[in-house]
Amino acid sequence: MSRIYNFSAGPSTLPEPVLLQARQEMLEWRDSGMSVMEMSHRGKHFAIIAEELESDLRELLAIPANYKVLFLQGGAAAQFSLIPLNILDGKSKACYVNTGAWSEKAIKDAQVYCDVVVSASAESSKFTTIPDYSSWVLDEQAAYLHYTSNETIHGVEFTDIPDSKGLPLVSDMSSNILSRPVDVSQYGLIYAGTQKNMGPSGVTVVIIRDDLIGHASKVTPSVFNYAEQSKNQSMLNTPATYNWYLVGLVLKWLQAQGGVAAIELRNIAKAAKLYQAIDQSSLYHNPVVVPYRSRMNVPFILADENLDKAFLGAAEANGLYELKGHRSVGGMRASIYNAMPEAGVDALIAFMAEFERTH
Amino acid sequence: MSRIYNFSAGPSTLPEPVLLQARQEMLEWRDSGMSVMEMSHRGKHFAIIAEELESDLRELLAIPANYKVLFLQGGAAAQFSLIPLNILDGKSKACYVNTGAWSEKAIKDAQVYCDVVVSASAESSKFTTIPDYSSWVLDEQAAYLHYTSNETIHGVEFTDIPDSKGLPLVSDMSSNILSRPVDVSQYGLIYAGTQKNMGPSGVTVVIIRDDLIGHASKVTPSVFNYAEQSKNQSMLNTPATYNWYLVGLVLKWLQAQGGVAAIELRNIAKAAKLYQAIDQSSLYHNPVVVPYRSRMNVPFILADENLDKAFLGAAEANGLYELKGHRSVGGMRASIYNAMPEAGVDALIAFMAEFERTH
Repeated sequence: MSRIYNFSAGPSTLPEPVLLQARQEMLEWRDSGMSVMEMSHRGKHFAIIAEELESDLRELLAIPANYKVLFLQGGAAAQFSLIPLNILDGKSKACYVNTGAWSEKAIKDAQVYCDVVVSASAESSKFTTIPDYSSWVLDEQAAYLHYTSNETIHGVEFTDIPDSKGLPLVSDMSSNILSRPVDVSQYGLIYAGTQKNMGPSGVTVVIIRDDLIGHASKVTPSVFNYAEQSKNQSMLNTPATYNWYLVGLVLKWLQAQGGVAAIELRNIAKAAKLYQAIDQSSLYHNPVVVPYRSRMNVPFILADENLDKAFLGAAEANGLYELKGHRSVGGMRASIYNAMPEAGVDALIAFMAEFERTH
Repeated sequence: MSRIYNFSAGPSTLPEPVLLQARQEMLEWRDSGMSVMEMSHRGKHFAIIAEELESDLRELLAIPANYKVLFLQGGAAAQFSLIPLNILDGKSKACYVNTGAWSEKAIKDAQVYCDVVVSASAESSKFTTIPDYSSWVLDEQAAYLHYTSNETIHGVEFTDIPDSKGLPLVSDMSSNILSRPVDVSQYGLIYAGTQKNMGPSGVTVVIIRDDLIGHASKVTPSVFNYAEQSKNQSMLNTPATYNWYLVGLVLKWLQAQGGVAAIELRNIAKAAKLYQAIDQSSLYHNPVVVPYRSRMNVPFILADENLDKAFLGAAEANGLYELKGHRSVGGMRASIYNAMPEAGVDALIAFMAEFERTH
């Protein structure tokens, strides 16, 4: 067996101790006599897993008591529709900030349910920056303000929390949740798919302030009604039980790393050295304005795109995989989430230098 | 390690060879250098898993070419809303047959989107039978006819395919799919959660005839729009990749057992001996009319409900778990899906006889 460095944007690399524990417990969890995936979600064993999952996430993100945490199915993209369905509450408008491909998808889906006010857009910069907050146009009649805290394709990340001028602030944190501390109390709703920093795909975390629950449109599918799922601890219907367990293992791994503040330091270090290597080279280039460069997803293009194929082939020969950039922007992309070890980043940097030297 | 017999109604016991293979491949799938749960859903490795998943299901159920197969998230309960959203196609009515708790949930969710014509109901029998087809009231203006092919709580199962008089026939087969052959061509849509006969929870299979695709209401969340997911091979957004893999392993296990026709014979044998043991005893009783007794879920009550607790305790002491009946019907329930070995049923029968002898 030989595990490679996997720079996939998601699903993405997982901490090896998590995989080892899942392997160890595959046929029997503790003394239950069964695999986690065979457990009734109503049973005493799974109750322990579910309780620890929520309490560990609450502890890691310091989630205040007036927020509910839901573990749903469907992916963050389902929430693009389910958020307006659940929280528009009869209002006809919502504000969205457009900072890249994921913002655009969220906007498109929301437009089915309301008028979308695009409060700011970085489109004219080809999504290489975050529009200055002073330029944002907020509509006080809007139900909420939505933004994407990290854009995986364009590699653009918010560095602080925008001022929503009293609108409930909603953020898609799929690709940077748990990578840095966040003041949850500043938000109305935070949501994230699990397949970047929390585990495998198959779970969507929704962290929602109490007062935003209970206003769903009647056409909301019942299993995606926040009030119904909140009343039922996300078990209105059978949840993705094994996925909950795996996310729980990742959270315990993160606690063992020292939590979010500690992992942030490592993420800063990993990203800094990779951007430095790019900036110092004449072959590689990252177009994002420096303060908004993502710590999670580092896109870069080669000065000669004819070298792309050779780069990817040589990278794989060096155990470095999934470096191809998204087709919409081309070039390369290294996703370096929490679980990517610093050694993986070091190996990538060394390879890039060697490739530049020989090409 | 000591694995027990797990009679849970779902999530439920899985074939041990599936767990062993998942354990074996946990850190590296084939020569990919990564766990399946770390793979990009757009990558070459996962493409193999996805293709085999669909082709194996098509082969096992002999799904005709004019049907699409979708692998979605949300559970079968999400489909209670998503089916009317996707296939009402502007019609104001749908027909539903009420044969138990799951039918009732499907009806309740559908009523949000249309007038539900209850074509037949077994409620007056306390859901111990299937109403005679000749009594069903079908409305030719309805968009479709829905029924639940097996009721896990009441233990009632359809033995053949009802005549829908030309209405598209829709069936929730969550709890008996792949347990017996089915003529898919008689259906407009078949759907099922995976956590009984197909794997862990987290995937919902939708098998849909081509002509029913493309009529979704505009308020359907885009990731649950059958047309959109069909065009994208169920990868409009990130699917529950590891769950797909696990379902794929279960399908390959089922093929190795000889397929659906072979497993049906075993299911008939397992159910027959358990019902026989119940009928021959004076302590245990199953209330369901004989022809409609479920092969998958065998509920039974004890003549003296004061013995319930002792029964469950003694069962666990004998390695027989999750036998408590659903709170709405009380008593016991043994779920004996495909993966429950005959030895498990034998052990249960022997225990029941011994318990009766000593109580």
